[in-house]
Amino acid sequence: MSPSALEALIDALRVLPGVGPKSAARMAYHLLQRNRGGAARLATAIHQALERLHHCQRCNDFSEAPMCSLCRNPRRDARLLCVVEMPADLNRLEETQAYRGLYFVLMGRLSPLDGVGPREIGLETLMARAQDGVTEEVILATNFTAEGEATAHYAGELLKARGLRVSRIARGLPAGGELEHVDGMTIAQALQDRRPV
Amino acid sequence: MSPSALEALIDALRVLPGVGPKSAARMAYHLLQRNRGGAARLATAIHQALERLHHCQRCNDFSEAPMCSLCRNPRRDARLLCVVEMPADLNRLEETQAYRGLYFVLMGRLSPLDGVGPREIGLETLMARAQDGVTEEVILATNFTAEGEATAHYAGELLKARGLRVSRIARGLPAGGELEHVDGMTIAQALQDRRPV
Repeated sequence: MSPSALEALIDALRVLPGVGPKSAARMAYHLLQRNRGGAARLATAIHQALERLHHCQRCNDFSEAPMCSLCRNPRRDARLLCVVEMPADLNRLEETQAYRGLYFVLMGRLSPLDGVGPREIGLETLMARAQDGVTEEVILATNFTAEGEATAHYAGELLKARGLRVSRIARGLPAGGELEHVDGMTIAQALQDRRPV
Repeated sequence: MSPSALEALIDALRVLPGVGPKSAARMAYHLLQRNRGGAARLATAIHQALERLHHCQRCNDFSEAPMCSLCRNPRRDARLLCVVEMPADLNRLEETQAYRGLYFVLMGRLSPLDGVGPREIGLETLMARAQDGVTEEVILATNFTAEGEATAHYAGELLKARGLRVSRIARGLPAGGELEHVDGMTIAQALQDRRPV
């Protein structure tokens, strides 16, 4: 009974992560009923992104140029290579202005249950990138989730086997953190990773 | 630092209901990294839906033709007009095969806090539709939420003022419902709406 263009739209919206049949229908009705201008902008943005965006040949982040502006920047310290899971993580690190080295974006994390192995997240590309002869230290900045930790461990072993110096960003209490309000696992890790003063 | 086509895509994805900046970024990365074919299909589906889908001039549901196939069907009972909030509600009713009349789709519900008043949900169009001289009974099948109830009450008053017969779908225990496992409000309503046997 439903018109076919509507069914096609609802079906197509399900490519979005976390969107099932009911949210897809709700999204389609919303676009068609309340925001046709926004819907047209969305379709155009997808087309243009697919057409223009590729991976930076050096850091694997999304880039419109063959090499992204960060990798082209001669003021960045090429001896430091920071490995992150996703572009959003890179952006968070950049916002802090606390890091002046280069990056490598895995575009994922090891997740064997989802069929994401070392090949899918481009660990081979990372190995080639890290062995450019300039990199002196690889900083693993994947998340402190089970999958992020496994990714850091696996990548760390591979990198060390190639004679590279590898580090992991620190675990511990957050800035301003109070023992009373921080979870036990974080406190245990902060104790374990204590530093001499 | 982010490429502009990526920023435009993340921004455009936020037209989807319930999608904030973080989910929009996650969706964009997913489309670009894991499902470029699906992304292209989504862009095309949006374009085609915008181009082809309009409102049925009779029931206000989405339709590619000026009048939808359900409204054109001569076997439907034109004396019955069932008012629903959304196309998904119409589909649910059709699936039951328990109704042979026609429909009117409000495309929303009264929600003053969100700025959705009688005009936005096309109650004027419903009044015109119901006064076609053929309709004998208007069945209000909006949801039993606060907003759906308010919509039914408001529409019911307007319809009755025009001399139309108006009914509301029944409240009560669901099929197979056990008193022990049904919420108190539903039981109270089932008691209040009890019918002679």
